Amino acid sequence: MFQLITQSGRARRGTFQTPHGEIQTPVFMNVGTQAAIKGALSARDLELIGTQVELSNTYHLHVRPGDRLIRDMGGLHKFMTWSGPILTDSGGFQVFSLAELRKIREEGVSFHSHVDGAKIFMGPEESMRIQSNLGSDIAMAFDECVKIPSPYDYVKRSCERTTRWLVRCKAALEAYNSESDAVNPGQMLWGINQGAVFHDLRIAHMEEIAALDLPGYAIGGLAVGETHQEMYDTIEAVEEHMPEDKPRYLMGVGTPGNIIESVARGIDFFDCVMPSRNGRHGHLFTRDGVINLNNRKYERDADPIDPQCDCPVCRRYSRSYIRHLLKAQEPLALRLMVMHNLYFYNELMRAIREALEQGSFAAFRAEFAEKLDRRI
Amino acid sequence: MFQLITQSGRARRGTFQTPHGEIQTPVFMNVGTQAAIKGALSARDLELIGTQVELSNTYHLHVRPGDRLIRDMGGLHKFMTWSGPILTDSGGFQVFSLAELRKIREEGVSFHSHVDGAKIFMGPEESMRIQSNLGSDIAMAFDECVKIPSPYDYVKRSCERTTRWLVRCKAALEAYNSESDAVNPGQMLWGINQGAVFHDLRIAHMEEIAALDLPGYAIGGLAVGETHQEMYDTIEAVEEHMPEDKPRYLMGVGTPGNIIESVARGIDFFDCVMPSRNGRHGHLFTRDGVINLNNRKYERDADPIDPQCDCPVCRRYSRSYIRHLLKAQEPLALRLMVMHNLYFYNELMRAIREALEQGSFAAFRAEFAEKLDRRI
Repeated sequence: MFQLITQSGRARRGTFQTPHGEIQTPVFMNVGTQAAIKGALSARDLELIGTQVELSNTYHLHVRPGDRLIRDMGGLHKFMTWSGPILTDSGGFQVFSLAELRKIREEGVSFHSHVDGAKIFMGPEESMRIQSNLGSDIAMAFDECVKIPSPYDYVKRSCERTTRWLVRCKAALEAYNSESDAVNPGQMLWGINQGAVFHDLRIAHMEEIAALDLPGYAIGGLAVGETHQEMYDTIEAVEEHMPEDKPRYLMGVGTPGNIIESVARGIDFFDCVMPSRNGRHGHLFTRDGVINLNNRKYERDADPIDPQCDCPVCRRYSRSYIRHLLKAQEPLALRLMVMHNLYFYNELMRAIREALEQGSFAAFRAEFAEKLDRRI
Repeated sequence: MFQLITQSGRARRGTFQTPHGEIQTPVFMNVGTQAAIKGALSARDLELIGTQVELSNTYHLHVRPGDRLIRDMGGLHKFMTWSGPILTDSGGFQVFSLAELRKIREEGVSFHSHVDGAKIFMGPEESMRIQSNLGSDIAMAFDECVKIPSPYDYVKRSCERTTRWLVRCKAALEAYNSESDAVNPGQMLWGINQGAVFHDLRIAHMEEIAALDLPGYAIGGLAVGETHQEMYDTIEAVEEHMPEDKPRYLMGVGTPGNIIESVARGIDFFDCVMPSRNGRHGHLFTRDGVINLNNRKYERDADPIDPQCDCPVCRRYSRSYIRHLLKAQEPLALRLMVMHNLYFYNELMRAIREALEQGSFAAFRAEFAEKLDRRI
């Protein structure tokens, strides 16, 4: 299902087949936590800004409106009217970062909903049931995302449990996919590598989960507080042990520079709330670096956010107008800023793919990896 | 500039020329207070939902971002990228409803900004200067919008002052339009009739301002607390005294039923925050009446908001999905609901115009005037 087109060092240009179409990699997935991109972007807007894959959150949708409701409405694609590929996370990250009063046992995790305090139990089977009801194309394994730093022994035992959970995820999703009324019977399971920044644990865990021959593998538990260098070192350590014929997904990363550097280390899939979250605060990506639209110098600036950008926002609106909307707390400001930032990320990935195809990725990396993250 | 195409009883079907294009009347103007429709609608969205005229607020734009800034950016059309007609109110209504610590004198009104408390003075000349800087197509006269109820003697004296202010508005706008760097030298001034619900004061004031031969006239100071019947009676009393060859604008009105009934009484222009404000709360107009999307019965409803509606929202999204967004406080909910409601109003006006052209307005009024306002 994953096909390599070309390589440049460890960087890979490929395609990946899903039940809802082919994905060109490297790719950035646009995060619509609650079945919508925060900032009033519609599914139509996603089409306009070149989104390839939409990512939604199992935990959030289970809590509200409920995965049974979405299943009854025909699944997440139909519910949000997005016909392209969808990846759902497993809920693991949110269970370990958002939920209150959680208790981990071998069976799974008990916790209280952050919306209404209701008691919820989620283990591998529950996570797969929910993701099966949502009908995403790529379901992520239910794992424990351990804090960094955590003691070596704790991380080791956690990885062992995450492997046992993965075996249960695989069996559960196979069973759900074979049900006659499965929403998306071609739904895939991807495994998630854990191990904090302990390279030996990362490698051992990766080898264990690679043996399960899943259609894709993620590196989880990074970008949670370690330094960029620790993150890159961990990727380099584990990447050699990831199957070459499967896509690799670095979860929750990152800045444009992080993405370019991680592509150079063999990563194919990315997701991050940064472009939408930073966008909502007026921090906007451009080909010259990051601008802060709150700055008074943009008050009478007739230029678009990024004069070199072809997005629907930059083709029409000025910095001056969008800054006014931001200061006046008009919701339209959020929408225009988030649209631009997501387009910028999608376009960044397109440029990376083009550079890989043309054999100019090294030059691209040298020109942009630092520049794009710079605040100007 | 105003041309009557046909009439049905007192109801009128016409066209009105502005520097930014021809308006088909009767028309509903879509309210973008701060140079944007509340609910994250863009100028592009306005095009998609059939908006003919955008309405912005002089007081709000003067306070933030400032009319000088908008002038420096080329005027309001360019600033918000809306190429159709724009009407600006005079600031009078906001000065009398929003501002704090106001003092009325013959020269104008002193008050404190609701944003930062700064002391502001606004009289006829200041209002015209601001509106000239914004460069709208239709500038409204600076008037006092008196409360209902108010004592007869106060209303009488207020109307006399509003007439004196109108004379000053006319002289001021003529002077500003003749400046070599006027943003929109074809900008028009419309007069505003006041007089609360005292028919003799309404009529006397209307006759005084009609004598100034302005290109349009509004009935102001209604829909501020009087009954619908008092409003209709006041329209009927004053309408006979409005020039037939000039458009008539009923400010701040109203429900679909109010609009149909007011068209039947000879009104051509309308504006109201109701479709956007009610839309943001999940109260949505349909051809069968008003639905409340908060209601649990829409939880699994796969129908669009209005199955008979062709708006971009109803063509794509279900009640179930939009209700989820509303409950999850996703800003996209506001946008989709406001888009639908504004499209509904624009489409209502199109249907009214068609009924007038086809001689079936009486039947249209009988079928829809009560039904569209009903909560179902």
